[in-house]
Amino acid sequence: MVCHGAAGISTQPNAPHLAGQPAIYLEEQLRGYRSGRRRHEQMNVVAKPLSDADIANLAAWYSSIRIDATLPESQALPAK
Amino acid sequence: MVCHGAAGISTQPNAPHLAGQPAIYLEEQLRGYRSGRRRHEQMNVVAKPLSDADIANLAAWYSSIRIDATLPESQALPAK
Repeated sequence: MVCHGAAGISTQPNAPHLAGQPAIYLEEQLRGYRSGRRRHEQMNVVAKPLSDADIANLAAWYSSIRIDATLPESQALPAK
Repeated sequence: MVCHGAAGISTQPNAPHLAGQPAIYLEEQLRGYRSGRRRHEQMNVVAKPLSDADIANLAAWYSSIRIDATLPESQALPAK
């Protein structure tokens, strides 16, 4: 909550927003932090004690938040 | 664009949304993919040829997209 925000909108410049991220992606990252495959000083400590169920619950919570993106007014998307 | 979407909203369950992510976070991840510190088969290949300026430009683009998060109706945030 302190770093990624209770609603998944990060409060720190080096922490990603988790709101609305795909559950599969979040689970993969948490498993990577737990095993040490993905390295991050704080996240490796935080993820170490998580069970598979904890990880599934965290991923379900953050992925359930809807996000809407708004492009800067000056920018247009490249044509498809 | 194929995986993370032109507007930074991912189109694949194992790819994160990049829209609105803090530029510092995005730069750190791209540098990590480029060096191999963060491992991902596709991203390591994609990031390998990026210059520091490329990385700064990518981070600036994705971070410039505004995102708004909406909690599921059934959920209330814990009191602060």
